[in-house]
Amino acid sequence: MSTQYPNWHWIFEWSTSGTIHAHAVKSVYVAGRTKYQSYLIAEFEDLGKALVIDGKMQSSLSDEYVYHESLVQPPLLAHGSPRTVLILGGGEGATAREALKFRTVEKVVMVDIDGEIVEACKKYLPEWHKGAFNNPKLKVVIDDAEKYIRETNERFDVIIADLVDPQEGGPAWRLYTKEFYELVKSRLAEGGVFVTQATSPTLTPKVFATIYSTLKATFRHVLPYTAYVRSFEGVWSFIMASDARDLQAFKELSDVDSRLQALGVADNRFYDSETHRSMFSLPKPIRNLLASAREISTLSNPVYIPA
Amino acid sequence: MSTQYPNWHWIFEWSTSGTIHAHAVKSVYVAGRTKYQSYLIAEFEDLGKALVIDGKMQSSLSDEYVYHESLVQPPLLAHGSPRTVLILGGGEGATAREALKFRTVEKVVMVDIDGEIVEACKKYLPEWHKGAFNNPKLKVVIDDAEKYIRETNERFDVIIADLVDPQEGGPAWRLYTKEFYELVKSRLAEGGVFVTQATSPTLTPKVFATIYSTLKATFRHVLPYTAYVRSFEGVWSFIMASDARDLQAFKELSDVDSRLQALGVADNRFYDSETHRSMFSLPKPIRNLLASAREISTLSNPVYIPA
Amino acid sequence: MSTQYPNWHWIFEWSTSGTIHAHAVKSVYVAGRTKYQSYLIAEFEDLGKALVIDGKMQSSLSDEYVYHESLVQPPLLAHGSPRTVLILGGGEGATAREALKFRTVEKVVMVDIDGEIVEACKKYLPEWHKGAFNNPKLKVVIDDAEKYIRETNERFDVIIADLVDPQEGGPAWRLYTKEFYELVKSRLAEGGVFVTQATSPTLTPKVFATIYSTLKATFRHVLPYTAYVRSFEGVWSFIMASDARDLQAFKELSDVDSRLQALGVADNRFYDSETHRSMFSLPKPIRNLLASAREISTLSNPVYIPA
Amino acid sequence: MSTQYPNWHWIFEWSTSGTIHAHAVKSVYVAGRTKYQSYLIAEFEDLGKALVIDGKMQSSLSDEYVYHESLVQPPLLAHGSPRTVLILGGGEGATAREALKFRTVEKVVMVDIDGEIVEACKKYLPEWHKGAFNNPKLKVVIDDAEKYIRETNERFDVIIADLVDPQEGGPAWRLYTKEFYELVKSRLAEGGVFVTQATSPTLTPKVFATIYSTLKATFRHVLPYTAYVRSFEGVWSFIMASDARDLQAFKELSDVDSRLQALGVADNRFYDSETHRSMFSLPKPIRNLLASAREISTLSNPVYIPA
Repeated sequence: MSTQYPNWHWIFEWSTSGTIHAHAVKSVYVAGRTKYQSYLIAEFEDLGKALVIDGKMQSSLSDEYVYHESLVQPPLLAHGSPRTVLILGGGEGATAREALKFRTVEKVVMVDIDGEIVEACKKYLPEWHKGAFNNPKLKVVIDDAEKYIRETNERFDVIIADLVDPQEGGPAWRLYTKEFYELVKSRLAEGGVFVTQATSPTLTPKVFATIYSTLKATFRHVLPYTAYVRSFEGVWSFIMASDARDLQAFKELSDVDSRLQALGVADNRFYDSETHRSMFSLPKPIRNLLASAREISTLSNPVYIPA
Repeated sequence: MSTQYPNWHWIFEWSTSGTIHAHAVKSVYVAGRTKYQSYLIAEFEDLGKALVIDGKMQSSLSDEYVYHESLVQPPLLAHGSPRTVLILGGGEGATAREALKFRTVEKVVMVDIDGEIVEACKKYLPEWHKGAFNNPKLKVVIDDAEKYIRETNERFDVIIADLVDPQEGGPAWRLYTKEFYELVKSRLAEGGVFVTQATSPTLTPKVFATIYSTLKATFRHVLPYTAYVRSFEGVWSFIMASDARDLQAFKELSDVDSRLQALGVADNRFYDSETHRSMFSLPKPIRNLLASAREISTLSNPVYIPA
Repeated sequence: MSTQYPNWHWIFEWSTSGTIHAHAVKSVYVAGRTKYQSYLIAEFEDLGKALVIDGKMQSSLSDEYVYHESLVQPPLLAHGSPRTVLILGGGEGATAREALKFRTVEKVVMVDIDGEIVEACKKYLPEWHKGAFNNPKLKVVIDDAEKYIRETNERFDVIIADLVDPQEGGPAWRLYTKEFYELVKSRLAEGGVFVTQATSPTLTPKVFATIYSTLKATFRHVLPYTAYVRSFEGVWSFIMASDARDLQAFKELSDVDSRLQALGVADNRFYDSETHRSMFSLPKPIRNLLASAREISTLSNPVYIPA
Repeated sequence: MSTQYPNWHWIFEWSTSGTIHAHAVKSVYVAGRTKYQSYLIAEFEDLGKALVIDGKMQSSLSDEYVYHESLVQPPLLAHGSPRTVLILGGGEGATAREALKFRTVEKVVMVDIDGEIVEACKKYLPEWHKGAFNNPKLKVVIDDAEKYIRETNERFDVIIADLVDPQEGGPAWRLYTKEFYELVKSRLAEGGVFVTQATSPTLTPKVFATIYSTLKATFRHVLPYTAYVRSFEGVWSFIMASDARDLQAFKELSDVDSRLQALGVADNRFYDSETHRSMFSLPKPIRNLLASAREISTLSNPVYIPA
């Protein structure tokens, strides 16, 4: 096979109608269309193996740890002694993997709407879940997250929203609204912490800002943070929220390393004390954006990712 | 699923370094990398199901009949009473299907180097082969075409080169050289006719012209013709060659319909008397190109598709 | 400057939402946005200098003669002794250039809505107009074609619609409707012939077929023909229409060369007797498409190019 | 004009052969090819006005301040009382603009090889230079930076390398080698600080790491830092180097705001105390990359951006 020809198999991630992040596919593991979504697990030239859903890169082998450590570890650390964790979405199993690293954690419930994608992840993404699906502490529920959370009697120390972006017509936009956040809040145990991925503050600033102000209208303490994720070709954001925990104090934490160690979290590839400082120090333009954020996403007036 | 988003899964066919024909994939049937080539069978938004090899569209359900009727029927008709046919390449099985339409045909040998792709075509492209692989008149040989033709004792009435383009480092460039054409000529039965796909006279004119002059240096009669193939986003060319048959007379034929009927060829979707006129009437720029063609492709100085 | 990097400046021509023809720009002559349209005159790697309007390749130096000879010469030849010609659109000046080749032509009126683009063509496309804008037989009117044709008292031997495609919201879609064709017919002199570019029969078959059936509902004789235009990456169509001229007889013409000579048309690069045969012999799928064409484009139910 | 069509005018920034960042052009201000480089100043849908050189986004109105404040202010602040500044490259004039913000600065020399691009920036990028080109403290020299620095007798408090990436065959790759850094070091005044843009630690980690280790082999103190730049679709890096200044202490600075104020730098849009913390706290993967960096770029074995 000659290698002098430019690549011919591409995924276009449309950040906006005017920006495309295109990634060359080297080979395809599996591709399909479920009841809810279109998906592709492929080997990419620059990212290695990766999962794409509806044209959005979900995570790649090259840096899934950046995304998953960032999403999971700060809220569990902010809680301090989490025993029960609820994951909304999280199909790859890597979010569960991160939660299970904490020695205090006794039970993780993962609710994902798309059983077909969860099965594909189990089979094709062992480097992600690393056996988490076989961990007796993990309970996987294939169901609509909104329905599950409405009906459950349980309360959780930490709830993690690891969802696809709020795309119009997609399966997750309802899970970024004030109505849903109220529901989440009611299912947190005392001292509980919620976290959600919050899209990109630089690629889709309006969506990020709206998620922030919607959470701010729901919870007493709200703390946004960011990490650059190469697979997403952008800075990614996460927002923690809690009525009970003083997240501002958490932001200033300087002993992340020893606290992680105390909780049994070892072998981190991304999150540590200095990374913590980089994640929680927001550049001025993002602070300005948040300071002026006003819009609230509701079921009747939801925020959507731009098409 | 919302449909307002631009397509995200694309195949780039690089016609040249400055022209890309990009096709949106709707779903993937199968994709793989064989010892020789990379392939993809997918459903495309505009073309329907299609086979792509090394980034080159081979044929699509929307118009594979244009390509295959054009490649096969004129040389068999020019021969007049073909009994034996040798196909070099032709993995989809549609070239064999077309040859088997002729009631005089008793035996078709198809030699394709890539058994894995032939198996994929058998399984995923039934609309192409339409059972030809089960026809007792067809013998499939998985081998290098050059080796096969060198070693065979058989002679054939018609030999059809249905090969990928002469890509540097690819599996087929040797099969477009003078040395190979001499070999082919020696394996034609008396009155035999050879035909080859000859790339696009408009997208890769130099390659087309070189194949033409190489054949002209080998055979007494040479007749180029063309058909527009939407899947290739261009005019495609074919060149017949024969020492025995007066192909110029064949060009002027006005009773193609009745001759096809006499040979038992029915249900054509593309080739008929008026289509014949359109295929064999070459626009002036192509005639000029051929009139000035001089380069001969040889093993030591082969012609390649531009990268 | 290294040349090993893939091209970075591209024009995407969206044939459909699932097919892109992308062309690499080497340098930009001029680019702008008029009251009506966006335009770019650039040097392309494969096509040479070319004019792009609203993302649609209008013509390139590499083969503008294919398009312009095809559009203009057949209707003037079919008329036989054209003295007056009306061009609707035709900003590059090459349509006028072709009409002025006929020694019988005494007057050409060209009506183009976009004066800014006409000026850019005058300045940057001398290889197209070749001085036609200075020919005293040519009168250029900057106006809406529909308004002009409604208000003129003149009658023309040949009317040529050299317009951008019928894009929704664009400046030309009204000029492909039955109402407009009735208007055109009323402005033809006795024995007059109309011709329009009719989009691509293979890329936008529905639009082509609708233009055909709309013309058929308006004129006694209608004759479609095609030419492959590399710059458009497809087969292009033209449709002649006339109440007076028997276009079927014209189709069968075998002495195009001598007729062109008699009318003073020399130095053709595309159109001649054999090219005529290739243009007017339609492959079976296009004939089938036309045979089943039924839809009529009207102001209240117009046909649009797919977005 | 309808807006429902996807964008058609694109710039492909090839990060690697497997990753494209594509940006839609809305209109073109000017485009050309100089003796050294190809350039384009255009209005982009997402980035606003921007300068592209050889297919690489140089800076855009949407966030040029991120890049230019990051490149210039930390080294001037680290110096403490800079009077003379030498800028290598810096055609847009925004690097000079930032240096001139410091009240201690008496003289800025900017040496750019490409006079044609500097003129285009003066004319089309007033939002960048904001009149800096008319500031009597600025002296612009059109010359090769290497030649200039070799021949000058002057010494500078701060030297800033604001150059295009080290592209093979491009005009700047020599300016990332150990030989050049030795030359730079010899032209620093006592207490002087050097800074260079250092490509992206995430998109081209090997190049970033090599620049780092090359500087480390030349200077006593070396301090890398980063900022996410949307226009580059990635995290960008800068590296300061000095024999005299203790850059580790600078990294830990908590009173950036008051120090900037003392030096007369007001109205910053990006750089302040918290942004400083985000820039100088490197995530673990980047720290690991730097810890294992070994390669030195030299004239005989230079580092190049991947093609």
